[in-house]
Amino acid sequence: MRTQVAIIGSGPSGLLLGRLLAGIGVDTVILERVTREHVLGRVRAGVLEQGTVDLLDHAGVGARLHAEGLEHGGVSIAFDGRLHRIDLAGLTGRHVTVYGQTEVTRDLIERREADGLITHYEVSDVALHAIDSDRPFVTFRNGGEDLRLDCDFVAGCDGYHGPSRAAIPATVLRTFEKVYPLGWLGVLADVPPVDHELIYSHHSRGFALCSMRSQARSRYYIQCAADEKVEDWPDDRFWDELRRRLPREVAERVTAGPSFEKSIALLRSFVAEPMRFGRLFLVGDAAHIVPPTGAKGLNLAASDVHYLFAGLREFYREGSRSGLDAYSDKALARVWKAVRFSWWMTRTLHRFDEEGAFGQRIQEAELDYLVHSRAAETALAENYVGLPF
Amino acid sequence: MRTQVAIIGSGPSGLLLGRLLAGIGVDTVILERVTREHVLGRVRAGVLEQGTVDLLDHAGVGARLHAEGLEHGGVSIAFDGRLHRIDLAGLTGRHVTVYGQTEVTRDLIERREADGLITHYEVSDVALHAIDSDRPFVTFRNGGEDLRLDCDFVAGCDGYHGPSRAAIPATVLRTFEKVYPLGWLGVLADVPPVDHELIYSHHSRGFALCSMRSQARSRYYIQCAADEKVEDWPDDRFWDELRRRLPREVAERVTAGPSFEKSIALLRSFVAEPMRFGRLFLVGDAAHIVPPTGAKGLNLAASDVHYLFAGLREFYREGSRSGLDAYSDKALARVWKAVRFSWWMTRTLHRFDEEGAFGQRIQEAELDYLVHSRAAETALAENYVGLPF
Repeated sequence: MRTQVAIIGSGPSGLLLGRLLAGIGVDTVILERVTREHVLGRVRAGVLEQGTVDLLDHAGVGARLHAEGLEHGGVSIAFDGRLHRIDLAGLTGRHVTVYGQTEVTRDLIERREADGLITHYEVSDVALHAIDSDRPFVTFRNGGEDLRLDCDFVAGCDGYHGPSRAAIPATVLRTFEKVYPLGWLGVLADVPPVDHELIYSHHSRGFALCSMRSQARSRYYIQCAADEKVEDWPDDRFWDELRRRLPREVAERVTAGPSFEKSIALLRSFVAEPMRFGRLFLVGDAAHIVPPTGAKGLNLAASDVHYLFAGLREFYREGSRSGLDAYSDKALARVWKAVRFSWWMTRTLHRFDEEGAFGQRIQEAELDYLVHSRAAETALAENYVGLPF
Repeated sequence: MRTQVAIIGSGPSGLLLGRLLAGIGVDTVILERVTREHVLGRVRAGVLEQGTVDLLDHAGVGARLHAEGLEHGGVSIAFDGRLHRIDLAGLTGRHVTVYGQTEVTRDLIERREADGLITHYEVSDVALHAIDSDRPFVTFRNGGEDLRLDCDFVAGCDGYHGPSRAAIPATVLRTFEKVYPLGWLGVLADVPPVDHELIYSHHSRGFALCSMRSQARSRYYIQCAADEKVEDWPDDRFWDELRRRLPREVAERVTAGPSFEKSIALLRSFVAEPMRFGRLFLVGDAAHIVPPTGAKGLNLAASDVHYLFAGLREFYREGSRSGLDAYSDKALARVWKAVRFSWWMTRTLHRFDEEGAFGQRIQEAELDYLVHSRAAETALAENYVGLPF
């Protein structure tokens, strides 16, 4: 079989790229390792930058997002028993939208199905071939058959563990990594969120984050050790620990309830350079991972899609490769800024025992400076709402 | 003998405090370990914040500073072969003044002598007594005599190695330290500076700083390993290495010449808390050390003097101790912000092998973000010109 752009991975970046290309008449086939239900069941981030929302609108999948998403004009930082609101809208003129990645994925899958476009689920043995030639192709196994997909380009939207990045020769690929010695224990519960906006809390016992998916569904996180187990955290222990890490005025308002999802995520930063090799383009988690502090993962995937879509459009409409040639540099410039911001948020808000007492005081000084400086608040705000594409 | 405020140390902080107190009729005696010539010969920083200049004016010692000091409305950051000017004046409405600490010290010593106030040089065995009582006193040895100085208060302006901080019980004192694995090799030469403003250069070979003392005297620094020796750096090697670490357009303009001072300083951050114990007040380097990146050392000493002078004035004029009781907290809040800024400048601009490739990319992303964000530039600028007292 043949398509114009073979997309490896049916996460939000692959789906969004496919939808944008469909809008300009470019054909795509998506190859996905797991089932449709598994893709739809993934719980991920939930804070969308304005640029991401605009791109989803442009792709024609923004209707439910606008109906159900929660616009946030601010975010709060808690430390030293106090709560400080960062006025995102006032400082930058922009806001963020809380709308789960799960919902974005559902909207995109439903649209893809309505458009009658092809996604092969549960494929295995995906392998990329001849990506440094003009005739790349992908082989895979599907329903007991060995298949071959010829294409003009391959979009590697298959996450950190996918085959795309691995197809780039080790002599070309350079990777950068930082592993943080901590995890996030996250809980989903159908209780009203403690606040109408997010609260990032710095505390001597460790970081906590009060977030939400809707007016009736809360998403809370607390920093834990990297080697802790979910089984060690029954709901009561979780809610007690969460409350301890919040200013009293906030803790008193937390509504506890049974969790229906509880998991531990490890935090790390990872970047692969370049993001393009021949006719293969890496997009999103396939090329970079950020810790969740700062909510940049999905938004970075969206900006990658924006740059790659622009390059492919230029290619198919005008026959020019200049946009594709610039993709890696353009995407990486923005990636590294978001990696820096996520690293800064992580470093500033979590407890790091290995940084010692000096490191703790530096965190406190940074937060104290932040909430007393309009410039520092603006720097945080402009990164949080998203630097321009 | 007796005085109202015994000042340990005849550096700029002790001298400035003495001069301000003289202005409101409060008597001081300064005890200094080394000779007058040694004090006058110390080469230190040279960038004064507006608040420091204002305080020197208030003390009546600003005349020569205004005649000979160089007002700088900007500072440049070099990286990736490019030079970016941070418009300090445009971003903050303030500027900095380049005027050597050596000159500040000279102005203050000459004024103290003109005022007929007492400084004992070359005293030894300085010891503080009864500082947690209402009748503290200092004993010392001077010209073969054992002497005792009774006082109301002791100002510990005696630097990191002085006896003042050591007089605070270990059960009370808490210290915070970070040692950076690098040094600054500094050179003074009577050649015209390469630029009319300072240039902080980030380079893969290591940090470099182009500074000056006057239109005809340059002060240059390059990052070196902590264990290097001045003898390993003949002038030619220094100038070659300096040029390599600057953008070509800058390197080509460097005027080399024989150095008349060359030394290696190790970089570290240190803070002691609290800065007050009973009737002893720590001021400047006695309580905190910052790496020179950011030029905060002398300016922090000046803000300590400002807070302590305000407290002593309140005490002697109104009999109130509230200013003195607030001294440590007020001074430390500003100290930690400057320690944070100095740490950030140091971390962002130097080469740190132990941070690996990820750390280098984070530095590059931070600098790239900085020069493209007015908010980030403003945050740097407002710290560089000095946060308000």
